[in-house]
Amino acid sequence: MIEIMIDLQGGAKAPLYEKIYTYIKNEITIGKMATGEKLPSTRLLAQNLSVSRSTVEMAYEQLLAEGYIKAEPCRGFFVCDVTELYRLGVRLPEKDGAQGENREKTGAGFRTGRLPETSGQGKTKESLQKEAAIELDFSPYAIDTEHFPFNIWRKIHKNVLLDDREELLYAGDGQGEFGLRCAIASYLHQARGVNCEPSDIVVGAGNEYLELLLTQILGGGQKVLMENPTYPQAYHTFCNAGYQMEMLAVGEQGMQIEEVRRRNPDIVYMMPSHQFPLGTVMPLKQRLELLKWAAEEENRYLIEDDHDSEYRYRGKPIPSLQSVDTVGKVIYLGTFSKSIAPSLRISYMVLPDKLLERYHSQCGFYSVTVPKMQQEVLRAFMEEGHFERHLNKMRGIYRSKHDFLLGELKKRSWVKAVRGEHAGLHVLVEVRTKLSEQEICALAGKRGVRVYGISEYFIYGEEEKSENGGGNDTDDNVFLYSMEKTKGENGVGDSREMSGCPVVVLGYGKLTEEEMRKGLERLDEVLN
Amino acid sequence: MIEIMIDLQGGAKAPLYEKIYTYIKNEITIGKMATGEKLPSTRLLAQNLSVSRSTVEMAYEQLLAEGYIKAEPCRGFFVCDVTELYRLGVRLPEKDGAQGENREKTGAGFRTGRLPETSGQGKTKESLQKEAAIELDFSPYAIDTEHFPFNIWRKIHKNVLLDDREELLYAGDGQGEFGLRCAIASYLHQARGVNCEPSDIVVGAGNEYLELLLTQILGGGQKVLMENPTYPQAYHTFCNAGYQMEMLAVGEQGMQIEEVRRRNPDIVYMMPSHQFPLGTVMPLKQRLELLKWAAEEENRYLIEDDHDSEYRYRGKPIPSLQSVDTVGKVIYLGTFSKSIAPSLRISYMVLPDKLLERYHSQCGFYSVTVPKMQQEVLRAFMEEGHFERHLNKMRGIYRSKHDFLLGELKKRSWVKAVRGEHAGLHVLVEVRTKLSEQEICALAGKRGVRVYGISEYFIYGEEEKSENGGGNDTDDNVFLYSMEKTKGENGVGDSREMSGCPVVVLGYGKLTEEEMRKGLERLDEVLN
Repeated sequence: MIEIMIDLQGGAKAPLYEKIYTYIKNEITIGKMATGEKLPSTRLLAQNLSVSRSTVEMAYEQLLAEGYIKAEPCRGFFVCDVTELYRLGVRLPEKDGAQGENREKTGAGFRTGRLPETSGQGKTKESLQKEAAIELDFSPYAIDTEHFPFNIWRKIHKNVLLDDREELLYAGDGQGEFGLRCAIASYLHQARGVNCEPSDIVVGAGNEYLELLLTQILGGGQKVLMENPTYPQAYHTFCNAGYQMEMLAVGEQGMQIEEVRRRNPDIVYMMPSHQFPLGTVMPLKQRLELLKWAAEEENRYLIEDDHDSEYRYRGKPIPSLQSVDTVGKVIYLGTFSKSIAPSLRISYMVLPDKLLERYHSQCGFYSVTVPKMQQEVLRAFMEEGHFERHLNKMRGIYRSKHDFLLGELKKRSWVKAVRGEHAGLHVLVEVRTKLSEQEICALAGKRGVRVYGISEYFIYGEEEKSENGGGNDTDDNVFLYSMEKTKGENGVGDSREMSGCPVVVLGYGKLTEEEMRKGLERLDEVLN
Repeated sequence: MIEIMIDLQGGAKAPLYEKIYTYIKNEITIGKMATGEKLPSTRLLAQNLSVSRSTVEMAYEQLLAEGYIKAEPCRGFFVCDVTELYRLGVRLPEKDGAQGENREKTGAGFRTGRLPETSGQGKTKESLQKEAAIELDFSPYAIDTEHFPFNIWRKIHKNVLLDDREELLYAGDGQGEFGLRCAIASYLHQARGVNCEPSDIVVGAGNEYLELLLTQILGGGQKVLMENPTYPQAYHTFCNAGYQMEMLAVGEQGMQIEEVRRRNPDIVYMMPSHQFPLGTVMPLKQRLELLKWAAEEENRYLIEDDHDSEYRYRGKPIPSLQSVDTVGKVIYLGTFSKSIAPSLRISYMVLPDKLLERYHSQCGFYSVTVPKMQQEVLRAFMEEGHFERHLNKMRGIYRSKHDFLLGELKKRSWVKAVRGEHAGLHVLVEVRTKLSEQEICALAGKRGVRVYGISEYFIYGEEEKSENGGGNDTDDNVFLYSMEKTKGENGVGDSREMSGCPVVVLGYGKLTEEEMRKGLERLDEVLN
């Protein structure tokens, strides 16, 4: 058992629970408390420190929420392996009680059992009307909104608006405020290995806006190769801007360099760290081959959409493609839509030098698209360590949801296989049934459950415009593809094939355990 | 003298000054207190109502700020002509004291003499570095930030964030939240005569973003005709998207329909209510001719950029071009950048039916670019009547600045003529000098004063690409053009010509009287 000796009198002013939390967190972070070690019970520690038991409980709850310790029923609290946790900024390990005033109270952190609710995220009015009866939505885009740190968000807003700061009203920097770009650069460097300066970053109101901007920076008319399936929004954005689109079905071997060479695009748009919606990871060898290919021509670029890499539940985070780019060929795109909230409308891109020059000469006149107050709030949220804590807390929450869903799916005979697990906010389920994908979705819809057929994420008729046949390995309803899955910690994959079965996408970000259970029971009625 | 009898005991709970303010405002609004009538002195009214004199003073200050009454030195307070004032929403005339809690306290409203400050709005880093020594910036884009209602803004933010509303985190409606679009539709109808439903409105992060969206909705490749001079940003946005651009020098006759027919564009981009930077108003006859021309072909459209129509200091506001469009040919663009703050990043466009359909089919998948919290704050700001009050207050403030600047310019022998006055946030000054426009700007810059040569707003080399000569009536430094100026209340113009002199743009939005005086004195050193 660990012995905990804290000087609760000295140091900065902060609530007692805060000092206990900070002390233990630092001890774990610097390795003084090792993985698996047992912590004293709340009763014992309260006695030793002469504080109330609820004070210790609050400290432990915070540590639990952020993933520093875990509770084992009837056994007590144990130190977690924290090598996976985000530790951002020079502020860590923190001084006792520093920044205590802005720290979230944990009280609101563990509610469960909310009533089901239609999410309606990013949907048009018509599609919302059609879904009026949907109670349980397994949307892969929906996030958990129950654990959002409203208290902190309110406090930061209050602080930002406190002093009648007139500069908050000026238009500001077209690339985004320098302070926010510093915070993003520091986060990207530490969490994603991205090599960038604040001056390489352009902040914008969502990925689609930044892609619109990219279509102007890149000049237009080029050939863009995308993975199939993919984010349909990104496809349509480039398509609307008059780019020539080609889709590469992600076959048994992933994105094969020979196929890329044969198609000869100018731009490749991809999600190497967590392909959407397949959930695959691109092996390092393929990444390096693509970088080499891009380096061969001046105007070739790789767009890395790193949409939800914050959430991995097994192994260390996979470094970004940009982190191994030494030739300035990767355009890195990231967003706060999944890590904070879609309604925030803040994304960022990291441009290589050559494109940064073009951005300044061609698009430098555009005003930033994110309100300055919102930028200031986000900057403070990141600088004061809340973003780090929020990510760690949410990762724990999503991991529980993920584990619960997997456990429930394991019990079902209609589940032939689960793919794309251990990361992100959704899994793919290969279904053993005579129904088609569309029939599953329709019948589930009649029972108030929305699930998504994987065909929604395929772009049809763009496989290869220039030649006949070839690459046409998608059917309306049956998919032959394979996935590179990470095996444990090392990121090396093995291939599995799934074929002949409908595949549905189940997102678990927003649903509670109760809601997932209910949703699956209704799917049982459809599929059993 | 008006007799004022208020029941200060009855009605809703509200501060006393608030009840007095609301009572008098309503009496003026419904015409019971007529223009020019004298109000009792603060001493007398305080005595009659048995309240402290400072209570009455606060009420009068608020009425002064919003333009309901005016103070004449040594004579007292008089009722203003309020036919020009914005009266938005069904809430007016208000019940005594209703919504009192959200009303701005006037205390912060009348500070003056702030230290000069470089605005740096929308400028690149390099241009900011070059201007490091600029103390007094006559930018036409800068707004007054001293009188921003921070108290109200804080309160609304607090209210919006109060109840852990999870729906604030969802992505929301791609066109903008319905509530905000209702508030905008109602404002546009009442203040600008715009005929629209909330469903016709698309909210976006600034005019440039909406213009980017427009380039996709319109389909691309068309010929766009713009007034010369114009907003260079709008020109570059269409240019970047591959549109064919042509500039029409606004000659003696304004935008002549014969010339438009000869150029044969698909789209005309214009600012009929207050041309930027000339400050001219397009006569009704020309508006109707353009509408008729647009109606002749299916794919012709007029883009009406109604950028700063909120601020007119003489005569009634001029109705929008959209208000006389019965054939669905006008795309109406508006912004809160000048009426609230550039950093807010909220604009809106009203689409005619046909383009609305195309928006839904082509661009309906784009997420909104304005954060939902910011939309909610703005909606409350408008719904609760704060926007109306803010506009009226700011119009009074800008009118004073405008009058002060005109008075100061009148004293100067180097001022040959002033143009584009009585509206917006800048005037044009024709300068009697041997210096060139560039020399004036450079010499002023050396003295820490930034003024803008009108040539900054001209697009060169695009007058008429298809033919030789013709239309090339701009020189590097000498401009021949004319302006349609409104004469009194009726909006009918007369033409004046100015030629052979450098023209500088003097924006007065952000500068205090002291700063303007100082700036003009330094210009005296350059020009005398």
